[in-house]
Amino acid sequence: MTAEIYHVLRSDQFDRPFLNDLFDITNKLRQISRTKRGADYLQTLMSNKRAMLYFTQPSTRTFLSFMNACQILGIKTSEIRDPHTSSEMKGETVEDAIRTFSSYVDLIIMRSPRAGLADRIANLLDETPRRVPIINGGSGRDEHPTQALLDIYTLRRSFGKTGGDIDNKKIAMVGDVQRGRTVRSLSHLMRHFENAQIYFVSPDSLKIADDLREYLKNEGVEFHETTNFEEVIPEADAIYMTRIQDEHDTAGESKHIDYSKYHFTHDHLKILKKDAIIMHPLPRRQEIDVKVDADPRAKYWRQERNGMWTRVALIAKMFNLHKDITEPYGV
Amino acid sequence: MTAEIYHVLRSDQFDRPFLNDLFDITNKLRQISRTKRGADYLQTLMSNKRAMLYFTQPSTRTFLSFMNACQILGIKTSEIRDPHTSSEMKGETVEDAIRTFSSYVDLIIMRSPRAGLADRIANLLDETPRRVPIINGGSGRDEHPTQALLDIYTLRRSFGKTGGDIDNKKIAMVGDVQRGRTVRSLSHLMRHFENAQIYFVSPDSLKIADDLREYLKNEGVEFHETTNFEEVIPEADAIYMTRIQDEHDTAGESKHIDYSKYHFTHDHLKILKKDAIIMHPLPRRQEIDVKVDADPRAKYWRQERNGMWTRVALIAKMFNLHKDITEPYGV
Amino acid sequence: MTAEIYHVLRSDQFDRPFLNDLFDITNKLRQISRTKRGADYLQTLMSNKRAMLYFTQPSTRTFLSFMNACQILGIKTSEIRDPHTSSEMKGETVEDAIRTFSSYVDLIIMRSPRAGLADRIANLLDETPRRVPIINGGSGRDEHPTQALLDIYTLRRSFGKTGGDIDNKKIAMVGDVQRGRTVRSLSHLMRHFENAQIYFVSPDSLKIADDLREYLKNEGVEFHETTNFEEVIPEADAIYMTRIQDEHDTAGESKHIDYSKYHFTHDHLKILKKDAIIMHPLPRRQEIDVKVDADPRAKYWRQERNGMWTRVALIAKMFNLHKDITEPYGV
Repeated sequence: MTAEIYHVLRSDQFDRPFLNDLFDITNKLRQISRTKRGADYLQTLMSNKRAMLYFTQPSTRTFLSFMNACQILGIKTSEIRDPHTSSEMKGETVEDAIRTFSSYVDLIIMRSPRAGLADRIANLLDETPRRVPIINGGSGRDEHPTQALLDIYTLRRSFGKTGGDIDNKKIAMVGDVQRGRTVRSLSHLMRHFENAQIYFVSPDSLKIADDLREYLKNEGVEFHETTNFEEVIPEADAIYMTRIQDEHDTAGESKHIDYSKYHFTHDHLKILKKDAIIMHPLPRRQEIDVKVDADPRAKYWRQERNGMWTRVALIAKMFNLHKDITEPYGV
Repeated sequence: MTAEIYHVLRSDQFDRPFLNDLFDITNKLRQISRTKRGADYLQTLMSNKRAMLYFTQPSTRTFLSFMNACQILGIKTSEIRDPHTSSEMKGETVEDAIRTFSSYVDLIIMRSPRAGLADRIANLLDETPRRVPIINGGSGRDEHPTQALLDIYTLRRSFGKTGGDIDNKKIAMVGDVQRGRTVRSLSHLMRHFENAQIYFVSPDSLKIADDLREYLKNEGVEFHETTNFEEVIPEADAIYMTRIQDEHDTAGESKHIDYSKYHFTHDHLKILKKDAIIMHPLPRRQEIDVKVDADPRAKYWRQERNGMWTRVALIAKMFNLHKDITEPYGV
Repeated sequence: MTAEIYHVLRSDQFDRPFLNDLFDITNKLRQISRTKRGADYLQTLMSNKRAMLYFTQPSTRTFLSFMNACQILGIKTSEIRDPHTSSEMKGETVEDAIRTFSSYVDLIIMRSPRAGLADRIANLLDETPRRVPIINGGSGRDEHPTQALLDIYTLRRSFGKTGGDIDNKKIAMVGDVQRGRTVRSLSHLMRHFENAQIYFVSPDSLKIADDLREYLKNEGVEFHETTNFEEVIPEADAIYMTRIQDEHDTAGESKHIDYSKYHFTHDHLKILKKDAIIMHPLPRRQEIDVKVDADPRAKYWRQERNGMWTRVALIAKMFNLHKDITEPYGV
C-alpha cells in the first residue's frame, strides 16, 4: 500500500513502494490484455471517464502513448495539439483554457514548453469546485515524470532477467545531459536504489546543471562526470543515449559542438557488456546507428512500448483501480 | 410533447415547450450520469451512430463541449478543425465536402465563419437521398443557437433556486452587443418569457443592430439601451458579459473604443443584487476580473459545463431518445 | 477461400477470388449494420484493436472513410494528419516514426506524397519483432489500392443490377489519366475481367504513362487512347471522371491545358447510355456539372459511401473475421 497521488507533476513524487506497486500493475495489465476477453475487460474499467490531451509542444510518442493508454482503459479522449486551432487566438489565458477543459473531462494530460506550468495549473484547479487530476506529460526543460517511470520500468525489467534490480548498477547517461529533461527526471529517481551509480557523459559545454549536481550530492547518489564515452561503455550496465536538445539553443550554440563523440556506433557493441542494455527516450537523430537496432541489447523500442503500459498503470492507479487489475473478476 | 426538430439552425426554432422538454432531459441526464452504471447506460443509447465535427472557425469550448456530448451518448466522432488538412486544398466546394461527410456519418455538427452556411447546407442535404441532421455550432455573426440553449438553461437553473423562472427578470447584456452572435441568439429566445426585460449596455459604436431592435419591438420584448454599466448593475437579475468581437473589425476600429467601462470588476460585486448572477459565454479577456470567479454569483464556469449537458440533451432529443432518458430501463 | 493478405500495398495483390470474397463481406456487413443490434455486434469484432491513421498528404475522404470504417468495427484510432505537430520536427526519420506507431497500435493506415513509401515501411516492419499490418491509403503518384477496390465494387454493384459483371464492359477513364493514381490502380485490376475494355480519354499532354501502357499490353487488357470525349460517351458502360492533378505540376503546365473538353456537362446525359454509370473518385472541381448529380446514373456519391464499406470489409478480412461477418452468431 502506497501513498495516493492526485496529480502527477514531478518525478520526486514517486517513492520506491509506489514504483513497486506501479510496476506490478503494469505487468498484470500486459498479461490481462493478451486475450480479447481481457482487453475488453480493461476497457470497462474507465468507460465512464473522459480525458483531455492538451499538447502545446510538438510530440508524437508521448502523445500517442497516452492516447493509446486511455483507449486501453476505455477512456474517451479529446485533444488539442495545435494551439492555433483553439481560442487562445481570442486572447484567452492558459488558466482559463484549462479550467474550461476541467468542465468537460475527468483527467487532463498536458505537455507544454513552459517549465512549471503543470504545477501552477494543478494548484489553480485545486482551488475550484471542479478539481480534476493533471498529468504532466513534459513541461519545458524541467520535468517529464512519466518518462522517468517508463525508464525505471525498462531498467528493472531488463535487469530482472539477469537476476537483479537497479541497486548496485551503473547507468551512463550520454549526450546533452544538461538540457534533456528525461535525464533530470530519471536522475531524481536514482536515489531510491542502493548504490546505483550514474555516469554523466557529455561535452564540456553540455554538463549537468548545478542544481541537479547539488541534488544528487544531497541525496547521496554517487555520480561521475566525464567527456570520454568509450571509457564508460565497458563499465556500464545501461547506456542511456540522448539527442542534442537544440530547440533550447539561444544562439545556435549546438552547431559548434562535435556531438559525434557521443554517438553509439555499431563498433561499440563489441566493448559493451554482454548483459548491458542500450536505451534512448527517442526520437533519435544519429546518436544510435540504426544497425544497432537488431542487437538484443538495444531496448529502446521496447522502452517505448513500456511507456504506453506504465502510463496505463499510472492512470489506473490514480483512479484507484489497483484491485480491479491485480485481482480482476472473471477474466 | 413538442414539435420535432430535424436540423438545429437558428434559435428561433425553439419554443417554450421545446425548452421545457429539453431542460427536463438535461436534468435527468445529469442525474443518470452520476453512477458508472448510469454513464455506461447513456453510452449505449447512440453507440451505433457516428458524427462529424466540422469546425472551420477556431473554437475550443464549443468544439470540446460537442465532442464530449457525443462521447456521453456513445457516438463515435471524426473531426476537421483545420481546413488546410482537408481536400478544400484541392478545390472542392464546401457543399461537396459536407455531402461527403454525410456519406460516412449520421450527424454533422458545424461551425463556420460564414453567416447562413448551415442553413444552406441543410437545404442541400434535404434534397439528397442521404439526408443527415445538421447542428449549427455557430455561423459567422448571425447565429449560435446551442449557446442560446445553454444560456437559457443556466438562467432558469439559477433563478429556479430562488423560486422563479425567467419571467419578470431583468437581463443585462454587456459589451459588444452588436457583433456578438450569442447576444442575438439569446435575445431571440427572450420572447418566450413573460415580462422579461433586456438591458443592452454598450459603447455607442457597438449598439445592437437595427434588425435585432426591430425584431424585439415586433415580438413585444421590452428592452433598454444604455452606455452606463454601473447604473444597470444594481437593477439586473443577470449580467451577461461579452468580449469585444474584434475578429469582425474591418479596419481595427475596436482599438479606438474604451472597453474598460464594460468590465465587471471586483468592486462591482458590492452593488450587485444578492441573488443576481454573472454569466459570460467565454472565452474572456479582461471583461471579468479573475478575482470575481470565487463569488458564488459568478456562474460562467457552470454555464460552460451546462453547455455540454444541454448539447447531450439536444442530440438525444433530435434522435427521439426522450423516453430512454426520462424513463430509463433498469438504471 | 482466397490467399491471405498481410499488408495492403498495391492493387496487383488482389485477384478475382479475393475481390469476390471481399465484396461478399461488404454486402453482408451493410446488411448487418442496418439494425442497432447488428451495428453494436460489428463493434465487438475488433474492440480490442487500435489503429493509427498516418496521413502526411492532405485528404478528407480517404481519411474519413478509413476512420469511420475503424469505428464500425470497434477499432480505436489515433491520427497524425499534419506532420508539423509530430516529432519529425525533431529530426526523426519516417522509418523511426512508423516503428514508433507500431509500438502502440495493431494496424497502420498511411497516406504519403512519396511513391513506394508504404512498401518500404512494410518491409522494415516485417524485420522487427513487432510486425503490424500496413494499409496503403495512397502513395504519391503510384498507388491507391483501396480506391481501386471501391471502384470495382461500385462497377460490379451497378452492373449487377442490370444482370452482369465487369466482363465485356467498356470503361472510359477521362481527364488526367497520366498522373491520377486511381486510374493506375483501377487499370491494373481490369485484367481480372474477361473482355473488359478501357478507353483512356485525355489531352495529348496527359496521356497514360509508358509503364501502364506496357503493363496492359502484357496482361492482354484491351485499351484505346483518344482525345475525343464526346465520341466515347455513347459507347461507354461506365464513365470514370478525374480532376486535373495539378499538385504534381513541376512548372504550372496544367494552366496551359484546355481541360474543359474533359468535363461532363448536363447535355452529355442525353448521349449517355440508359444504363451506363458516371463515377468520380472525388473531390471534383468542374469536371462534372453539379446539375448532373440528380441523374440516377450519377454514382459518385454512392461510390464514396461504398469506399467506407469496402474498407470495413478489407480490414475485417485482413484480421480473418470473414466468418464472424458472413455467419454471425445471434445477430
